[in-house]
Amino acid sequence: MPKVSEDYLAARRSEILEGARRAFAKHGYEGATVARLEEEIGLSRGAIFHYFDSKLDLFVAIAAADNLRYQQVLAEEGVEAVVRTVAATDRSWLSVLVETEVRLWHDPELERRMEAAAEEDTVLAGLTRAQREGKLRTDIDPSALLEFVMIVLNGMAVRVVSGNQLDVDSLVRIVNDGLRAGDQAVPCSP
Amino acid sequence: MPKVSEDYLAARRSEILEGARRAFAKHGYEGATVARLEEEIGLSRGAIFHYFDSKLDLFVAIAAADNLRYQQVLAEEGVEAVVRTVAATDRSWLSVLVETEVRLWHDPELERRMEAAAEEDTVLAGLTRAQREGKLRTDIDPSALLEFVMIVLNGMAVRVVSGNQLDVDSLVRIVNDGLRAGDQAVPCSP
Repeated sequence: MPKVSEDYLAARRSEILEGARRAFAKHGYEGATVARLEEEIGLSRGAIFHYFDSKLDLFVAIAAADNLRYQQVLAEEGVEAVVRTVAATDRSWLSVLVETEVRLWHDPELERRMEAAAEEDTVLAGLTRAQREGKLRTDIDPSALLEFVMIVLNGMAVRVVSGNQLDVDSLVRIVNDGLRAGDQAVPCSP
Repeated sequence: MPKVSEDYLAARRSEILEGARRAFAKHGYEGATVARLEEEIGLSRGAIFHYFDSKLDLFVAIAAADNLRYQQVLAEEGVEAVVRTVAATDRSWLSVLVETEVRLWHDPELERRMEAAAEEDTVLAGLTRAQREGKLRTDIDPSALLEFVMIVLNGMAVRVVSGNQLDVDSLVRIVNDGLRAGDQAVPCSP
């Protein structure tokens, strides 16, 4: 028998995750029954749960992948890019993400999985490089700059999900100015 | 019979709310049974539910009062004061507040009550005054400045509750610089 390739397995996994994300966004976490997951993913429960242990496992895999992606955007493209990425995230999915994460705050398995997917060192290295390049203020520790960015991203999610319209361009200007001020060279006032 | 004074009723109401806040912080929303509410408040269920319709009504009254207080601090004392007030809020209570508000996002009664307690006009007037006094940037609309502050306050709550330590002084500096930059007069770089 031919050996199933790694690529095939990865493609199948990612197909399942995309379908599950749509099912969660459409029906909510509780409402995404196994039958609805099958329908949206287009595979039988046997096939789906061959790759993932449970519905919670599916949710955690999507949440951890999102988290990782946001961190990579932040590390490689900077603060403005990650603010715009979160602002462009589908609101229904964001709602499931926030509600389920809050419900699972004290769940040790979710915590462990999210931490395993965290690349804080990479993100901090990206911020430190941006400081050296003069793109970010240097009078504040990179970890405090990162905490501010995390506050903004989490706050954006809460505000969007609770029904507020964001003026993303104004937000980006305020956030950028906060992160650049301090010891940055500024043009003289006349 | 002597008429019960308004002052007496208000004092009794606020005594009940303070006790209920302690019970929610100690046991969580679900864990705060009627027996535990009685114990913490020091009154019988008959007395408690003479003033409030239900446990949810108690929760909403506390959440709406907190909301109103944060808005008053923001309008009267400014952004730094409200950031420090949220940072100083008891973490156990903040956790109940965030978890329950998220769970009730789609509850029309909570929404109605929170909106009734909102003083957005007062807050916006405070921000506009601060712009006129040169304390806040004027190149961005007051409503976008307010949205940024709301993002920061909500994000702070999420980060604190999910177990992160905040460096409040650094946060205040970044937030202040973001809100003051733009068209503000700045000292010349040498």
